[in-house]
Amino acid sequence: MTKNCLKLKDLTTEEIMKLLKVAITCKQGQYIDSLKGMIVANLFFEPSTRTHYSFNVAEEKLGMKVINFSSASSSIKKGESFYDTVKTFESLGVNALVIRSEINEYYNQLDKIKIPILNAGDGVKNHPSQSLLDIYTIYEHFGYFKGLNIVIVGDIEHSRVAHTNIEIMNRLGMNTYISGPKVFQDNSAKFIEFEDGIEKMDIVMMLRIQHERHHENMKLSQEEYHQKYGLNIDRVKKMKENSIIMHPAPVNRNVEISDEVMECDKSKIFTQMENGVYVRMAMILRSLGENYDSIN
Amino acid sequence: MTKNCLKLKDLTTEEIMKLLKVAITCKQGQYIDSLKGMIVANLFFEPSTRTHYSFNVAEEKLGMKVINFSSASSSIKKGESFYDTVKTFESLGVNALVIRSEINEYYNQLDKIKIPILNAGDGVKNHPSQSLLDIYTIYEHFGYFKGLNIVIVGDIEHSRVAHTNIEIMNRLGMNTYISGPKVFQDNSAKFIEFEDGIEKMDIVMMLRIQHERHHENMKLSQEEYHQKYGLNIDRVKKMKENSIIMHPAPVNRNVEISDEVMECDKSKIFTQMENGVYVRMAMILRSLGENYDSIN
Amino acid sequence: MTKNCLKLKDLTTEEIMKLLKVAITCKQGQYIDSLKGMIVANLFFEPSTRTHYSFNVAEEKLGMKVINFSSASSSIKKGESFYDTVKTFESLGVNALVIRSEINEYYNQLDKIKIPILNAGDGVKNHPSQSLLDIYTIYEHFGYFKGLNIVIVGDIEHSRVAHTNIEIMNRLGMNTYISGPKVFQDNSAKFIEFEDGIEKMDIVMMLRIQHERHHENMKLSQEEYHQKYGLNIDRVKKMKENSIIMHPAPVNRNVEISDEVMECDKSKIFTQMENGVYVRMAMILRSLGENYDSIN
Repeated sequence: MTKNCLKLKDLTTEEIMKLLKVAITCKQGQYIDSLKGMIVANLFFEPSTRTHYSFNVAEEKLGMKVINFSSASSSIKKGESFYDTVKTFESLGVNALVIRSEINEYYNQLDKIKIPILNAGDGVKNHPSQSLLDIYTIYEHFGYFKGLNIVIVGDIEHSRVAHTNIEIMNRLGMNTYISGPKVFQDNSAKFIEFEDGIEKMDIVMMLRIQHERHHENMKLSQEEYHQKYGLNIDRVKKMKENSIIMHPAPVNRNVEISDEVMECDKSKIFTQMENGVYVRMAMILRSLGENYDSIN
Repeated sequence: MTKNCLKLKDLTTEEIMKLLKVAITCKQGQYIDSLKGMIVANLFFEPSTRTHYSFNVAEEKLGMKVINFSSASSSIKKGESFYDTVKTFESLGVNALVIRSEINEYYNQLDKIKIPILNAGDGVKNHPSQSLLDIYTIYEHFGYFKGLNIVIVGDIEHSRVAHTNIEIMNRLGMNTYISGPKVFQDNSAKFIEFEDGIEKMDIVMMLRIQHERHHENMKLSQEEYHQKYGLNIDRVKKMKENSIIMHPAPVNRNVEISDEVMECDKSKIFTQMENGVYVRMAMILRSLGENYDSIN
Repeated sequence: MTKNCLKLKDLTTEEIMKLLKVAITCKQGQYIDSLKGMIVANLFFEPSTRTHYSFNVAEEKLGMKVINFSSASSSIKKGESFYDTVKTFESLGVNALVIRSEINEYYNQLDKIKIPILNAGDGVKNHPSQSLLDIYTIYEHFGYFKGLNIVIVGDIEHSRVAHTNIEIMNRLGMNTYISGPKVFQDNSAKFIEFEDGIEKMDIVMMLRIQHERHHENMKLSQEEYHQKYGLNIDRVKKMKENSIIMHPAPVNRNVEISDEVMECDKSKIFTQMENGVYVRMAMILRSLGENYDSIN
């Protein structure tokens, strides 16, 4: 059976906890070169820094041979379809595919592909490796999930990070809230006013504002956004002891988060990036590691 | 003596049969990591998916260190010449070069380069690795070449695949025909009407139609092309038992080939891609493998 | 202590001589795979062929795992800052960073980065690896520096190569001169008329003319530039016995240097490229090699 990792909904809570556990041992230095001789292709149809290079580092640490496909210099230019491009890499004999695409649930087009697919982000729908690194970072800090309060602030409606996180966090027993401009909210979690909620949150997770497309909808300038919804030092002072700040990045400094907050003690933003490598190693091991099933 | 692979005309029929033989052993799992420590640079001055990444996978399987040059972010932007760019990579100490360029017979500019050059396609002239994978796929299916009938359908005049294939297939004793819109034919093989010839063909090889430049010449819409020259299920039904369908890809689905034909039993399109890795491994071994000459 | 290599001014003459010495042993075949398991990321924010791929080959020879970051398909597109992009790669756990940027002294923004940074060129300011390969090539040919006469010809003012070279060459006891159109000169070295000086020079180093931005300032066509300041065969005939010709490349053939001179006996242009790999291996070993300090 092919072990895809397309969306977290497909995984039981036990499977997710096992992924975290394997990621912890990866962070301790285990599994280096354990997939030597295997080939993976990274197919990124959308720009990416963190996710792409985090997978890349994870693959290299596992000792894999890495093929990086850039759609810009490919036959996509000659009109080749998404399915045919993916099927080509299967035909070339790679052992697994890491795919990011702007197409919602692109994997529904890939039923016939028989090698494991790891979803590196699909449209506004799923981003399982991001959610795994988010909950890994929370677990590393708190040691448990049950009862933790989190607010996710920003454009919830268009955020695959928010949607994937809310589902899994609810399942893990966390209390999830959403906040930010009303025009960006959907009914994926309870809405809370940012100013009101911040004092009782264990985790404040800010999302990136996409200047290009958000400007008009919000009718707010970047300065106004920062003033109303941005995480500045005054708001951080209201936060609970031992609470943390997260952001999937890339960050618009001084829009969602002020410069001084970005690398403050509470900020886990760069820790999230670090942990991303280890959860992605775990994801790949789940799909390709010979002994994954026997790990307890 | 440098062992280039520039065009198949330079190789005797015996040399070609030896390449196929080595490719077969590659497909059986031989030669993994046999070129460990060697460095190859892939210089692609034109977009490519299959050829580029097929070479890339072949090189990785052989254990080579792979340098992928992208002309888009290079000093080509600063006006550096083709020759100087290639000479640069020789100077950097790589062991072989894989080159694709839109320049016909670009290798005539590279007399002074002393390391092996593997041609990954030059203008409308040669595409030796594509032809090798085509005849490999034919040989794998039929077990012989002599007397096999093939028709190549599409823009023959501008196809390096067609030109390279016709030369080698004639040499191997196959009967080659060309078909498609009259405006695209040259005198490289006998013309046959597509509808008339399809019943007696062992191999039907479709070529990609390049919307951009073909539209005007043909005075045919994509739908009209598909109706007149496309391989649809009705035409496939006329084909001989044990006959096969090929296409170098990328494919314009429902122009040259209908969706339902693309992955039907007769279609070898994705098998061609798979085999491409093994013939390219053989090409590289011929240029760099220490014991290649002593293989019988 | 982090061992950056940002500008040659930071290095004592002894340290520079040691780098050359280690590069010599690299050219003799030492240190292959000596950094196995280490990961390096090449971050190129500007187009580059020689520097980028020379570092890439050097890293592969040292056995490193190489991550090539292309700003074109990254979150730079989404407005991520230079610092955050660099900090991301540190967070991903790579062992060193090779960075080229159009920002003068970009490293002043990177105080907080704790892993070694190797400067692959910053704006019009520094290009330490280029200068190291230049003096390596000079040392390989002459065996000493003291008293050698060099003229650097072209746009001195905007050349990080010229500025970095003049500083280190003066320090090594060479007599440095600058020449070319007056509008391009600054006071970094003594000016000399090209025609007057050529006879007494041990080294003539030509710089690339950037058509785009130079045309207007010079009020000279390419043909006129070649006639007045280009290195043609007649000028080469005036050069001293045992003198050499250098150019950092990319070259505009028949502008700075005529075709026939490019690969003449005196030309070290492609030797410079070859040597670039070895000095870059030495630079990386200085930053990451366990035993570098104990080399005598």
